[in-house]
Amino acid sequence: MEIKKDHINFAVGPVMISEEISALGADLVPYFRTPEFSALMLENERILKELMDAPEGSRAVFLTGSGTASMDAAIRNLFTAEDRLLIVKGGGFGHRFCEIAEVYGIPHDEVIPETGHTIRAEHLEPFAGKKYTAFVVNMDETSTGVLYDMDLISRFCKENGMMLVVDVISAFLTDEFSMKDLGADVMFTGSQKALAVPPGVSMMVLSPRAQERVWANPSACFYLDLKAALKNQERGQTPWTPAVGILIQINARLNQIARDGLAAERARIREVADYFRRRIKDYPFTVFSDSLSYCVTPLSPNNPEVSAHHLFEVLKDEYGIIVCPNGGELADKVFRVGHIGALTTADYDRLFDALDDLMRRGILKA
Amino acid sequence: MEIKKDHINFAVGPVMISEEISALGADLVPYFRTPEFSALMLENERILKELMDAPEGSRAVFLTGSGTASMDAAIRNLFTAEDRLLIVKGGGFGHRFCEIAEVYGIPHDEVIPETGHTIRAEHLEPFAGKKYTAFVVNMDETSTGVLYDMDLISRFCKENGMMLVVDVISAFLTDEFSMKDLGADVMFTGSQKALAVPPGVSMMVLSPRAQERVWANPSACFYLDLKAALKNQERGQTPWTPAVGILIQINARLNQIARDGLAAERARIREVADYFRRRIKDYPFTVFSDSLSYCVTPLSPNNPEVSAHHLFEVLKDEYGIIVCPNGGELADKVFRVGHIGALTTADYDRLFDALDDLMRRGILKA
Repeated sequence: MEIKKDHINFAVGPVMISEEISALGADLVPYFRTPEFSALMLENERILKELMDAPEGSRAVFLTGSGTASMDAAIRNLFTAEDRLLIVKGGGFGHRFCEIAEVYGIPHDEVIPETGHTIRAEHLEPFAGKKYTAFVVNMDETSTGVLYDMDLISRFCKENGMMLVVDVISAFLTDEFSMKDLGADVMFTGSQKALAVPPGVSMMVLSPRAQERVWANPSACFYLDLKAALKNQERGQTPWTPAVGILIQINARLNQIARDGLAAERARIREVADYFRRRIKDYPFTVFSDSLSYCVTPLSPNNPEVSAHHLFEVLKDEYGIIVCPNGGELADKVFRVGHIGALTTADYDRLFDALDDLMRRGILKA
Repeated sequence: MEIKKDHINFAVGPVMISEEISALGADLVPYFRTPEFSALMLENERILKELMDAPEGSRAVFLTGSGTASMDAAIRNLFTAEDRLLIVKGGGFGHRFCEIAEVYGIPHDEVIPETGHTIRAEHLEPFAGKKYTAFVVNMDETSTGVLYDMDLISRFCKENGMMLVVDVISAFLTDEFSMKDLGADVMFTGSQKALAVPPGVSMMVLSPRAQERVWANPSACFYLDLKAALKNQERGQTPWTPAVGILIQINARLNQIARDGLAAERARIREVADYFRRRIKDYPFTVFSDSLSYCVTPLSPNNPEVSAHHLFEVLKDEYGIIVCPNGGELADKVFRVGHIGALTTADYDRLFDALDDLMRRGILKA
């Protein structure tokens, strides 16, 4: 089965991979129970913690799985039926956290902002002083491209003595945060977002308080047991055979970012996001978020006769361009244009040329 | 961190990857929520079921994770505290099944052959007529290279009305079996064994009876929920972002094997295994298994002064050759030489040259 791989890809993962990192994918995958691979994994841990600005005593682990593996592992390893979570359910990924809590029988309440809107102080007030164990949030609700106000959330957690679990899957490297300043206990991301490596690995940083919870709770899972992950990572290893090739690519990218600086990485992403957002104003779309992350721009066609999903299909099949479709109720209403991965302003010019052509053809209209 | 990748690799995974399949690793990873990727995944399912000789109505799913993810998912999705398992614990991987059953509170008893030995009828007799739900076995106990007598086990299951769960992680493509003939309900393998693709994906085939159990049981897990996997795979998709790049390499390999024939693939592995086993007789090792799989040959140095783990280190650091070390109690006693992946008899000649040199240097001795 041949599959086309030369699209310009504006999806929010997998994303375009630089030539340097792609080339590593063609190397043989080495055996991994060696001191050499351990050293690489310890370096991965060190740089990841630096980039997250993790507090003293934090640890990082690398799970072979998608970002959802980390969402699952964080909730199940840290919390039990004795706890109570407050989860922001602002879109598909907030909903996923709620489903995870339900499967494991962990009591939780939901903060529900309007779709496409951030949360404000008044959303949180009803939950103050209610003895929740932890606050759980996707920093950027990737499904609708809404970046939540992490300072507001951090203050709420500190005032109410709550732990803070933050999915930074799509906010890592794109939007500013400090795990230390936010007082966050768990943060995790995935290989295929702004890190721009193939999908298959998710990585998590745990504060000392989060680690204590992992050790204190009974192991509820085998494959995603964080006790086993923490213990093995002490010597730069994983309990089971990991996606070794992807971890090597992660190492190259982490070193690249450490060398050039996190600010430079963020600036590069911000530059293409700003370029796109300036030019898209001339087209018949409304930005479907009142609080944008630099990761992605969600767009809704102004004309109700124009289907967002149809635009995705035509761009893919006739122009070799991938934008990120939405699912469920938003399928016809919203698509998203990502700003992560090896993208240049010239790539966006190709997208605008295609949109111009769609206007001429009457497929896109005001 | 630079890591050496040009060893000759006789490990049992990750293994040597052919140039054709490696080259695919350098391609951009395409966006996957498309009809094109769905078609590729449905093709993966079709060929995998053919190669396993799965019974009518079987389904396959692809999990982003190591082989242990499938071990975990099979046990937890099919069985509950109401069931009772009989698990063969002949080495590290049989032990892992027992640990999984313990974590999920699933009652089980253990069939324990001597280390390095297969199971015989007398091992099973005490467990006949005892109302077990299922028999759980690693067809090849990879840690010690012991291939179990699957016909014996299959007969026992049929006579006792038991389901049969078989880890064929290292037996797939190396040793003959038919899921249909054995009456097996679940079989799974990993991408980095004889399939010779980078690690990161495990794949499972479920009989109709196994699927019924998945649907009847409450979902006990989120990330490894087989209901979600089965439902999504109906349209060639996965519930979460999968290791897309590895799934494309799996597709290329499955097509290669379908085209050239499973018999040819097995013959190629058997040829290098036989070549190695003929020549190794001239060296001071004892084969540490009374029932060999074609996947791997476990070796124990005859001279108790020779440490198996030291040989692994010297071969790696001074000869650029990886053999597969053992852990735990067997670390100094056993190492393994694999026969899967893109290996030729010339690669084994290099290994024998190194062993000759180690003999001359007195590091290996009779």
